[in-house]
Amino acid sequence: MTTARRDTYTPQTLLSVAVRVFNERGYDGTSMEHLSKAAGISKSSIYHHVAGKEELLRRAVTRALDGLFGILDEEHARVGGAAERLEYVVRRMVEVLTAELPYVTLLLRVRGNTGTERWALERRRTFDHRVAELLKAAAAEGDVRTDVEVRLATRLVFGMINSIVEWYRPDGGGASEQDVADAVVRLVFGGLRESG
Amino acid sequence: MTTARRDTYTPQTLLSVAVRVFNERGYDGTSMEHLSKAAGISKSSIYHHVAGKEELLRRAVTRALDGLFGILDEEHARVGGAAERLEYVVRRMVEVLTAELPYVTLLLRVRGNTGTERWALERRRTFDHRVAELLKAAAAEGDVRTDVEVRLATRLVFGMINSIVEWYRPDGGGASEQDVADAVVRLVFGGLRESG
Repeated sequence: MTTARRDTYTPQTLLSVAVRVFNERGYDGTSMEHLSKAAGISKSSIYHHVAGKEELLRRAVTRALDGLFGILDEEHARVGGAAERLEYVVRRMVEVLTAELPYVTLLLRVRGNTGTERWALERRRTFDHRVAELLKAAAAEGDVRTDVEVRLATRLVFGMINSIVEWYRPDGGGASEQDVADAVVRLVFGGLRESG
Repeated sequence: MTTARRDTYTPQTLLSVAVRVFNERGYDGTSMEHLSKAAGISKSSIYHHVAGKEELLRRAVTRALDGLFGILDEEHARVGGAAERLEYVVRRMVEVLTAELPYVTLLLRVRGNTGTERWALERRRTFDHRVAELLKAAAAEGDVRTDVEVRLATRLVFGMINSIVEWYRPDGGGASEQDVADAVVRLVFGGLRESG
C-alpha cells in the first residue's frame, strides 16, 4: 500500500494506460505529452520502457491479434466438422473481444496511417480470411447455407461481433460475457426466427 | 457545361461536400476553413447558406434520420404480423443505409459533444427502441426466438446492419444494394445454418 508510484510502473501498466488514452483521443490525436500526463510519469520515464507511441500501439494490437489468432490453434478450431469448428471460433471471438476489450477496440479502430497500423490491418485481413475459409468449408460440407456469398456473410458476421465493442462494458451490470457469446452464436447460426 | 461554378452551388451541394469532409476528418476536426476549401467557395458564401458547421451537421443527420423514421410509416411496417413487419423494416434499413450512405455513416459516428449531436443520439435511441418493440411483439406472437434477450438481440442486429457503412461502396463492383439487403435478411432471420 505504501509502495511508491514509480515502483508500480511496469511496461504492462504503461501499456494499459496508453490503450485507454488511444481509445479516448484516437491514436493520431495522442501525443507523448498526453501519455505522460495520463500515466503520471515523465516522458523520459516512458522512453525508458518504449521507443515511442508507435511501439505502444504495436504492443497493444499484438495483444489483441495474439488473442484472436490463438483461437485458431485451439483444438476445437482444428478438429471436427467445419461448421462445429466455425461455431467454436465465433464463440471464442466474442470471448476474446470481451476479455481483451480495450485492446480489440483499438485494433478495430486502426486506420493505416503508420507502418504499424498497416501491418495490423494486414493481420486482421489474414484472420478474416482464415474464418472465411472455415465458412467456405462448412458450406462445402452442406452445413451452412449457400445462398449468401461467403465474403459477404463473413463481413456481416464480423460486423455483428465487432459491434460489441461499442456497448459492452465488463462491469456494467448488463449482459454478461457468456450471455453475449450465447446470443451471438444463436443469432449467427440460427437467426431470429423461431424454428420450433 | 459552361455554367460558372458558383451558380451550381445550392444548399444541397454544400451539404454533400460538408458530409464528405465530416466523414473524412471527423466533425470535431472540421473547421469552416476546411469546408470552404473543399467546397471551393469562400467562408462568407457558406455563411450565406448556413449559420455554421453545426447547422450542416443537423441537416445531414436529419436527412439520415428522416430516411430511417420514414420506414416506420410505410404500410408494410405498420400492417401485418410483427415478424413480417420486422423483416420489412430490417430490409428497408439496409436499403436506406446504402442509398444514403454518407449521411447514415455520419449519423453513426456522432459522439455527443454538441447539442445537435446529443439530439441525434437521442433520435437514434428512439429509433432503436421502436425496432426493439417490434422484435418484442414478434416474440410475443411466437415467431421470433425468446432465448436471446430483446435488447441484446436488437443491439446485435443493429451492429450487423450498421457495420455495412464500413465496407459498402455503391459503385465498387462488389455486392449490390439488393445482394446486401437479401444477405442481411437471410442471416438475421435464418442464420448461417443450412435448414434444409
